[in-house]
Amino acid sequence: MSVLVWIIYDISENKVRNKVAKACKQYGLIRVQKSVFLGRLESNRFDELGEKCLSLINEKTDSVYLFPFCQDDFRRIKVMGQGFDRKLVNDEILAEFF
Amino acid sequence: MSVLVWIIYDISENKVRNKVAKACKQYGLIRVQKSVFLGRLESNRFDELGEKCLSLINEKTDSVYLFPFCQDDFRRIKVMGQGFDRKLVNDEILAEFF
Repeated sequence: MSVLVWIIYDISENKVRNKVAKACKQYGLIRVQKSVFLGRLESNRFDELGEKCLSLINEKTDSVYLFPFCQDDFRRIKVMGQGFDRKLVNDEILAEFF
Repeated sequence: MSVLVWIIYDISENKVRNKVAKACKQYGLIRVQKSVFLGRLESNRFDELGEKCLSLINEKTDSVYLFPFCQDDFRRIKVMGQGFDRKLVNDEILAEFF
């Protein structure tokens, strides 16, 4: 079963932050803001990516949120202001999800 | 119909940030991180709070995400590291949601 996913992180060290971003990309997620990714994952891959993030971060200083959505909830998400950085993501890509 | 809600924002001006935080509190959400709130809202209140946030922020510099969840999705959210700031929220409060 696949799930729509948003990942949002706040990571203090550049090196760690880059590794988490790289993992998100490797899992096929697309970047919509500096520290925000979205995409579609199989459920087991969602869990896997969670474990990967947990193994990378410093739990005392960093935070990562992995949000799974069914299609109905996903459609009702509200993104305001610079929530989508138009330098990173365009309408064509977003149309695949919304 | 009520919905479980996470709100995450990145707002540059203190004054605006405080107003958004105040609005979240007024809508009965609880703060779990500096710029993260969660709670339960009636659907129409979810929309209302969205409009309120939009009216407060500077859309050129700020971002706000309002994430609505059904109970099933909500339970599968992964929060890592400092995602819950234990100075702001304790297990007793979190147990109401998870």
